[in-house]
Amino acid sequence: MSLIVSIAQINPIVGSFKHNIKLITEAITQAKADHADVLLFPELVLTGYPPEDLLFRPAFLKKVEDSLNNIAKLATDIVVIIGTPLLIKENGNNSKLFNSACVLRGGQVSYQYAKQYLPNYRVFDEKRYFRCGKQDGIIEVNGHKVGLLICEDIWQETPAINARDAGAELLLVLNASPFRSDKSAERMLLLKKRSIQNGLPIVYANLVGAQDELVFDGESLIFDRSGQLIFQAPTFDSGVFTQQIPFDKSVKPIQAREHHKEQSIYDALVLGVRDYVNKNGFPGVILGLSGGIDSALTMAIAVDALGADNVEAIMMPFRYTADMSIEDAAQQAKVQGVKYREIPIENIFNGFMDALSEEFDGMERDVTEENIQARSRGVLLMAMSNKLGKMLLATGNKSEMAVGYATLYGDMAGGFAPLKDVFKTTVYDLARYRNILGDGNGYKEIIPDRVITRPPSAELAPDQIDEDSLPPYDILDAILGMFIEEFQSVEEIVAQGYDHETVERVAKMVLLNEYKRRQSAPGIRITKRAFGKDRRYPITSHYRWHLS
Amino acid sequence: MSLIVSIAQINPIVGSFKHNIKLITEAITQAKADHADVLLFPELVLTGYPPEDLLFRPAFLKKVEDSLNNIAKLATDIVVIIGTPLLIKENGNNSKLFNSACVLRGGQVSYQYAKQYLPNYRVFDEKRYFRCGKQDGIIEVNGHKVGLLICEDIWQETPAINARDAGAELLLVLNASPFRSDKSAERMLLLKKRSIQNGLPIVYANLVGAQDELVFDGESLIFDRSGQLIFQAPTFDSGVFTQQIPFDKSVKPIQAREHHKEQSIYDALVLGVRDYVNKNGFPGVILGLSGGIDSALTMAIAVDALGADNVEAIMMPFRYTADMSIEDAAQQAKVQGVKYREIPIENIFNGFMDALSEEFDGMERDVTEENIQARSRGVLLMAMSNKLGKMLLATGNKSEMAVGYATLYGDMAGGFAPLKDVFKTTVYDLARYRNILGDGNGYKEIIPDRVITRPPSAELAPDQIDEDSLPPYDILDAILGMFIEEFQSVEEIVAQGYDHETVERVAKMVLLNEYKRRQSAPGIRITKRAFGKDRRYPITSHYRWHLS
Repeated sequence: MSLIVSIAQINPIVGSFKHNIKLITEAITQAKADHADVLLFPELVLTGYPPEDLLFRPAFLKKVEDSLNNIAKLATDIVVIIGTPLLIKENGNNSKLFNSACVLRGGQVSYQYAKQYLPNYRVFDEKRYFRCGKQDGIIEVNGHKVGLLICEDIWQETPAINARDAGAELLLVLNASPFRSDKSAERMLLLKKRSIQNGLPIVYANLVGAQDELVFDGESLIFDRSGQLIFQAPTFDSGVFTQQIPFDKSVKPIQAREHHKEQSIYDALVLGVRDYVNKNGFPGVILGLSGGIDSALTMAIAVDALGADNVEAIMMPFRYTADMSIEDAAQQAKVQGVKYREIPIENIFNGFMDALSEEFDGMERDVTEENIQARSRGVLLMAMSNKLGKMLLATGNKSEMAVGYATLYGDMAGGFAPLKDVFKTTVYDLARYRNILGDGNGYKEIIPDRVITRPPSAELAPDQIDEDSLPPYDILDAILGMFIEEFQSVEEIVAQGYDHETVERVAKMVLLNEYKRRQSAPGIRITKRAFGKDRRYPITSHYRWHLS
Repeated sequence: MSLIVSIAQINPIVGSFKHNIKLITEAITQAKADHADVLLFPELVLTGYPPEDLLFRPAFLKKVEDSLNNIAKLATDIVVIIGTPLLIKENGNNSKLFNSACVLRGGQVSYQYAKQYLPNYRVFDEKRYFRCGKQDGIIEVNGHKVGLLICEDIWQETPAINARDAGAELLLVLNASPFRSDKSAERMLLLKKRSIQNGLPIVYANLVGAQDELVFDGESLIFDRSGQLIFQAPTFDSGVFTQQIPFDKSVKPIQAREHHKEQSIYDALVLGVRDYVNKNGFPGVILGLSGGIDSALTMAIAVDALGADNVEAIMMPFRYTADMSIEDAAQQAKVQGVKYREIPIENIFNGFMDALSEEFDGMERDVTEENIQARSRGVLLMAMSNKLGKMLLATGNKSEMAVGYATLYGDMAGGFAPLKDVFKTTVYDLARYRNILGDGNGYKEIIPDRVITRPPSAELAPDQIDEDSLPPYDILDAILGMFIEEFQSVEEIVAQGYDHETVERVAKMVLLNEYKRRQSAPGIRITKRAFGKDRRYPITSHYRWHLS
């Protein structure tokens, strides 16, 4: 009493039918070679996830249909279950779009299951595109009843129960479940609970790869009917994995891999950068290396993602740049084998100040002059990016993005911002983690220790350090976490022992700086409330004056 | 057999309880003075629309509740119907959030109607925040049954029919219906149809004012039971309007105001700029005036929105700037009474090229050097903006935004982009329209004629005109309209007589430039598919290679 199931944990590209069909075809070939009864693909694997408003284009949906019919021809001597958007006639009338699991067998599409629960929260907008399915998805494979579910369906109680009640002996779940820091453990607990609750084995196939701000971590899972983990696919890597699923008895459970928090985040950032750069066809990246911790970590991630040959670093010193910043930047570039050059911005800055001398005559120096430094660097980096065709990485972190401690069109310039969802305190943790890994030959100081230990500074004014303008980062990040991710009020945060004036000031800065974030580069989501699709605040809002 | 109904067509600010309560209080006072039986407010007027993710904050919802209870105390000798988000206990269990119409009378909240149909398409995300109401909203006023509906409810057939079947003699509809070019006529047709269909008079109260990318045009309406228009409030203006509504017989219908397309759009842009600048507390705006049509029209709009004293223009000539560009810019500034200055960018540009000379040695000139010009201007304008505290207006139009004919951090820099949803051909129409209006004293050349008649040029290279890189704008805009707004395929557009290569090139440019638009300033929505919340495309997408 068992079935052999293959899981295709693959990395599709949104809108690339050619690439996706190639991966799908290879997976079918492999599953057949493995003598699988069933091959399970992730959610919407045919289009990539999420295809967003491409789903409104009839010509796009036509390509989907044609591709699906071509793939179906390969489904002989195996049952293939594949996630795809699909137009289905409802009540014989108009076609409506569903987030579907199509069952391919005998060379054709033999059955369509439509996702019943559509997530429309956090980063998800599925109700914008899809109708809810109304029926259970029960198919038969080798005389066994198998229940189909799609992602959110398994997070709800009803669909699994209904499938069980309809006689399912096994649940197959197609997923596109994006990574965040503690998601793996949550999934594990959920699936354990669902399998025990229904006394059914569960096969959970997840996407792998990155799409804009989302990273899919793979790590497909199989639980037996008693809630024991019996298979865990690699995290952040692709493959076709074939397992025999016992229906009626337990097999020896396996130990779930331990996830080290920094390792998971670091790996997610590496995959996020790699896929953004490669899928968008850039021959590499450049970045401004300042001697500070953010650009140092960004460069380490970029090198791990793309290889040193595909990363270039530019140090752009000014009168406020400390010697040690230049030394440390040069040192890291040397250690990592990255092409490095220095371009001073003194003359450029002076050019702007001369041009503005009449306008600014008699006016005090203020943040304007700091921004001119940051923007001079932004223009230089974008010019290099334009000329070389390499994408510019922005190096700002989540703490800065939250309170607006960043210059629009200056250090915020770039096509992608790897650390956008990484708090400054986590930036330090990741830098230390990366140094522990070392270079593979025992050398541990990938990021120079001094970069990690010196007080952080934007170096935009004499003897400036971040704490002149901001609370210490451990306090700032704690407040930001409560305010942004937990929606706590100023009073609730103060009640936990934080200074009222500080909390209120931080909260106001967060709400005020929505306009900067609206024009920021996309970055990789690692928390449960990232600055991206996850957070949709009005720019025009007086709520910051009504906080308390 | 009639009721006296006041409509409060007011302009709230998102998150400003103080401002909104003040407007609401004034409206109640006025309606009482008018001896109204019922005062009808628009949808979510207490918070402003849309409050977006502020709705996830418990402290925000607590303010809403407290504010509502305070307002309720004013509801004596009148029935007040007000739109607000409201936590309502469902089945005695957890509180769920509803988009509600609260009925205030006798000094308290006496009834809550919850919106049944939640729009989750185009710019709307209501299913992200609200649960669907399940019940009709029938109240009694002076012995008459009155049906309550909220916005999308009236666009669906069922809620009005159900209200009628439950005995309603009148429908009151609370709305936050955003402007687009042809929306007024659509609303008019819909309401006429609904009133005839149900044999009921309809009072339709709409918001007025702008919120980020949305403009609400007001123009609240009353139809009698036979589908005749009997009242039409001003467009783009606020006020409290009191009318006697006859239930059982027709009164003399009025003629609907004719909407001149250019007038509507122009007025929407003016209100959009005024509210964005004022609600965000800027003391005025600056803009780069190039001698071209886009910045000329943007300046005209800004002056009409804010007054000449609150607008400053900066012309930043370079070696490719034609003399007539400088003359025309200076001329318009003089005519409009706007502070004007010239800041050449020659030295700044040379500073960048010197700094990059080693890097760029032996490499061909390309778009990089053009971008450096645009970005030098961007940095200068942002420096002025920072120093003066005035917001920078970006001047790009929709045609440019669509195909990426704009420089990130260059001419795209700015806090707000009034023409972001205005195709180039419409820019010309609006410029001509504005000149027809003239200065009020018979002078008609607000925008110099030469700006309208000369071939458009970015002036970033010698003798450059836009048509060197782009199809003629009448062709480009036609293709863009079909591709972006109608979701037509390349083949469908070609079938209408356009050149295949041109259409495919345009379509690819549109899809490729998603990354630029993602970092663009917000602008005012005037079409049915604006670049903003309206359009959610992946950046990483290979669909552009699979178009045909």
